[in-house]
Amino acid sequence: MTQLAFQDQYLDARADCWGCGRNNPDGLYIKGYWEGDEAVAHFLPQPQHTGHKGVVNGGIIATLMDCHCMGLAMAYAHREEERAIGTQPLITYVTGSLKVDYLKPTPLTDQLLELRAKVERVEGRKTWMKVSLLAGGEETARGEVLGIRINEPPAMNG
Amino acid sequence: MTQLAFQDQYLDARADCWGCGRNNPDGLYIKGYWEGDEAVAHFLPQPQHTGHKGVVNGGIIATLMDCHCMGLAMAYAHREEERAIGTQPLITYVTGSLKVDYLKPTPLTDQLLELRAKVERVEGRKTWMKVSLLAGGEETARGEVLGIRINEPPAMNG
Repeated sequence: MTQLAFQDQYLDARADCWGCGRNNPDGLYIKGYWEGDEAVAHFLPQPQHTGHKGVVNGGIIATLMDCHCMGLAMAYAHREEERAIGTQPLITYVTGSLKVDYLKPTPLTDQLLELRAKVERVEGRKTWMKVSLLAGGEETARGEVLGIRINEPPAMNG
Repeated sequence: MTQLAFQDQYLDARADCWGCGRNNPDGLYIKGYWEGDEAVAHFLPQPQHTGHKGVVNGGIIATLMDCHCMGLAMAYAHREEERAIGTQPLITYVTGSLKVDYLKPTPLTDQLLELRAKVERVEGRKTWMKVSLLAGGEETARGEVLGIRINEPPAMNG
């Protein structure tokens, strides 16, 4: 069965995010998919996403990790409750904190970058995740992301 | 005396960064200035920089903090050595790590956001900085950034 990306299952009113919203006019359009217990995404950096000659910008890397992990947090919560993303009552997450260790330069070439993330721990409304960025199979950055579940009133669920 | 922004003193070959390079065709153009011992920058988020209805994207916030602190690390090192940014031998910094705590939603309005950063500690090639993001004078996110000084061979100094 072909999987829909996490982000392609968000409601239209929630799909405007710069990092991952399909409705943003000028975003990164990050798309995550399940691969067993891991969430995986691929991203092709564009020339303007540079930090320094031939190297991907650190802020772009932080954005990739942030949005990929928020997608994972949401997908994970829905999977635990055995229901589809976007069903009511709506489950959404916001980023509580983000830590990125830049291990080595991430090359900006015509090669796809890979993000692999996993839920480490869930405690009430908090979900802790770990994420790696890989270029040519080599880990170039590592992140820890905390997602916080938002319980929105029904009136906001649109 | 009118100050030139840190980033406007970088050499042309170093001014292509997505977050702060004046030569990037499609970047954020972050510009930092001294205000006593603090580095201050202002940024007007654009509609596409959203994370969620009316709120600034977390990855954009991480980028602002990253680039603002790298500008500070460079300006600080040059000030310590009593010489101008861009003079030889070139001093450059890369980001070692970045931690952002998102304290509350950062409103995306027509209001300028403010970044205030300070050097906390320098140890050899490492510079630790703290940075706050403020909206309407209220702190909405707080960051810790580690910059690592790169000693490049003279052939790279162009």
